[in-house]
Amino acid sequence: MILITGASSGLGFALAKQYDKDGEPLFLSGRDNEKLIKTVDEMSSSPAFFAANLAKPTAISNLFDRLVELPSTVIHCAGSGYFGAIEDQQTDKIESLIENNLTSTIYLLRELIQRYQDEKVTVVVVMSTAAQVAKAGESTYCAVKWAVKGLLESLRLELKGKAMKLVAVYPGGMATEFWQSSGKAIDTSTFMKPDDAARMLKQAITSAENGYVSDITINRA
Amino acid sequence: MILITGASSGLGFALAKQYDKDGEPLFLSGRDNEKLIKTVDEMSSSPAFFAANLAKPTAISNLFDRLVELPSTVIHCAGSGYFGAIEDQQTDKIESLIENNLTSTIYLLRELIQRYQDEKVTVVVVMSTAAQVAKAGESTYCAVKWAVKGLLESLRLELKGKAMKLVAVYPGGMATEFWQSSGKAIDTSTFMKPDDAARMLKQAITSAENGYVSDITINRA
Amino acid sequence: MILITGASSGLGFALAKQYDKDGEPLFLSGRDNEKLIKTVDEMSSSPAFFAANLAKPTAISNLFDRLVELPSTVIHCAGSGYFGAIEDQQTDKIESLIENNLTSTIYLLRELIQRYQDEKVTVVVVMSTAAQVAKAGESTYCAVKWAVKGLLESLRLELKGKAMKLVAVYPGGMATEFWQSSGKAIDTSTFMKPDDAARMLKQAITSAENGYVSDITINRA
Amino acid sequence: MILITGASSGLGFALAKQYDKDGEPLFLSGRDNEKLIKTVDEMSSSPAFFAANLAKPTAISNLFDRLVELPSTVIHCAGSGYFGAIEDQQTDKIESLIENNLTSTIYLLRELIQRYQDEKVTVVVVMSTAAQVAKAGESTYCAVKWAVKGLLESLRLELKGKAMKLVAVYPGGMATEFWQSSGKAIDTSTFMKPDDAARMLKQAITSAENGYVSDITINRA
Repeated sequence: MILITGASSGLGFALAKQYDKDGEPLFLSGRDNEKLIKTVDEMSSSPAFFAANLAKPTAISNLFDRLVELPSTVIHCAGSGYFGAIEDQQTDKIESLIENNLTSTIYLLRELIQRYQDEKVTVVVVMSTAAQVAKAGESTYCAVKWAVKGLLESLRLELKGKAMKLVAVYPGGMATEFWQSSGKAIDTSTFMKPDDAARMLKQAITSAENGYVSDITINRA
Repeated sequence: MILITGASSGLGFALAKQYDKDGEPLFLSGRDNEKLIKTVDEMSSSPAFFAANLAKPTAISNLFDRLVELPSTVIHCAGSGYFGAIEDQQTDKIESLIENNLTSTIYLLRELIQRYQDEKVTVVVVMSTAAQVAKAGESTYCAVKWAVKGLLESLRLELKGKAMKLVAVYPGGMATEFWQSSGKAIDTSTFMKPDDAARMLKQAITSAENGYVSDITINRA
Repeated sequence: MILITGASSGLGFALAKQYDKDGEPLFLSGRDNEKLIKTVDEMSSSPAFFAANLAKPTAISNLFDRLVELPSTVIHCAGSGYFGAIEDQQTDKIESLIENNLTSTIYLLRELIQRYQDEKVTVVVVMSTAAQVAKAGESTYCAVKWAVKGLLESLRLELKGKAMKLVAVYPGGMATEFWQSSGKAIDTSTFMKPDDAARMLKQAITSAENGYVSDITINRA
Repeated sequence: MILITGASSGLGFALAKQYDKDGEPLFLSGRDNEKLIKTVDEMSSSPAFFAANLAKPTAISNLFDRLVELPSTVIHCAGSGYFGAIEDQQTDKIESLIENNLTSTIYLLRELIQRYQDEKVTVVVVMSTAAQVAKAGESTYCAVKWAVKGLLESLRLELKGKAMKLVAVYPGGMATEFWQSSGKAIDTSTFMKPDDAARMLKQAITSAENGYVSDITINRA
């Protein structure tokens, strides 16, 4: 079974649809219950689902208590964007940005490691190319994405020799609602479509007897 | 005038004492008012001071309203540590870690840029070598420090051509109370003393007509 | 048609065999003509081939003059290893290491860009995880691999908006003859087999209308 | 005694003049004997000197055989630049670039470590901000500078616990002849002067009982 967070929109939604089409058992999560129900309705199977704000430890705990079997793969797509020059950014939106991207990912990975570190679970953490470079107009977004990268690379060291594997994904320039609502004026017409990114990502997450693809960057052509 | 945050302990305190000895006008800040008053008492001059939790936007605003002159240099030493394997970390302490290191630094830099981006102000942000590498047992600490590095490097791009300059400092392995209270069992006897780190830092923060030392890493010998 | 360098051994050989099995037209290259002929003999088709020392500009030029059609993909696997503490390394072997890894890659990419920058050619450069981290006992090997990474990332900036795409591949810990002859005593029994790495790599090199997988790290499980 | 390589021009020359003014005993090296003699003539003392092409192992060996005492500090400034789009670069100039920056630094550090790893010698390696980022039009220059950074960071791991210390210096945008002869059209009037960079560097290379400044980036204001 594959657990997807942030399944109601963007890359998470595109991945859910494609895995659903393959007949892969799914468990979907998202912050907004209504959106999540609409998402589930678009699947051909009737995947299990649970709405959870991952920045709340009890919500995460509840989410995993619902799982009736071990997930083979967890794909963490949940996150949000906020952009603009630092002097124009609002403190409440900065707080949400930190919660939605950093706090939630720390709590999710903590829970996953507490529960499954000795299980053959592949945890895919979807970040952004903003985790790899600095960008003007994206200072706080880069900050939370760099944080997740530092977290993930440190946790890999903690998980050395364990069965659980962490896969880092860095997509750049996708055309999701995420950008349209981000307050940053950008022509996204040549951006990757989430469906394309999902297809590439699905294919690139692969493993063999003694190895696995651990880091994947997807970029605009 | 030099404004120092986190002036009540560790590197911030050591810097305050040394600049005070040089007769440099100071403005000291720290979270705890009592500790801050004790700190001020140890100075030969009577530096102005203001206790502020930098994770609170209004506290930062109040702090800068108190300044009677433009600071030539702001040295941001405030921060806190929290260590251990992720599965043993507590969510409330993770939240404090994020607030004390990331949220506060975002708000402080935002305020500084709003007020002084066109002034000749040197802003020194003290991070840690944990901002540069991943470390087992320091996953969340690395996360917040990587975040501050990503923030700072993005803000440099935003400040291109502006009078304000950002200096990044990465000290490694100092023997401060910080470690003693961090819950990580470590022999700190061969660590750098804050006084030594402060002396080196003070000397290395230097500039010339068309250039400046922008990044400094200090390591244990 | 797919052009593979370093096709006579290791990952290059494994890729050649797998693409050959798929019925993919190939052009194979390697330094040693005899080894290359043996490699070609193991293919089900009779792929075109040309032995070339890529550190010699004329050899590269001759190689590309032989191609009767545009390669859709060039997979640059050629390279060599040399390990040990710096004080024990021999200068002639260091020179070979630089030639086989850095000089050759510069000349190959230069030729490819001169000829095909406006063509839909995907150039896959196989490096190593030694391009991403520093390692004791691998100082000169890390040096040449970091060099190739810096080269590739700079060339991406030069190729912005061009049809040619550069894909970076970082495999870690493969069990090739390469290691057996490297003078470094290491138990490679749990290392990835080149066949496994080739299978994952083949699958992960993928693209869509507006995007492509640009960076892939493959690690030991 | 301070040994300076690349002492006949740019930052190396500026450092030599300033240390000479301080009365610091010097040993100067450069590739060109005539230029080196002119350099020595500009010093107030009569520093020892030796012309050496550091890409030749025997030349390095001869250089160190000449030293009559242990150098407290070695400042490696030697290097050369070569710029332009990769398709316009000439192979012989690429080879010189590799020799002057990478091969020479490997051989120099190898010799230093063979001779002095257990001595209190500080080895300062001057690179460039091109060692830290990718740049269009500087692909091969970035390559060799990234190489030196990877080398240095790996050697630090090999030297762990040893008395010898490695200091990394990354200057950006200096106005040296180096640029004027680099074939890259750039207005260097707002660039740092080597004298300014030398003054800052001299001040920032500092150490204390248990620590030292290990990495310094100097940038244009």
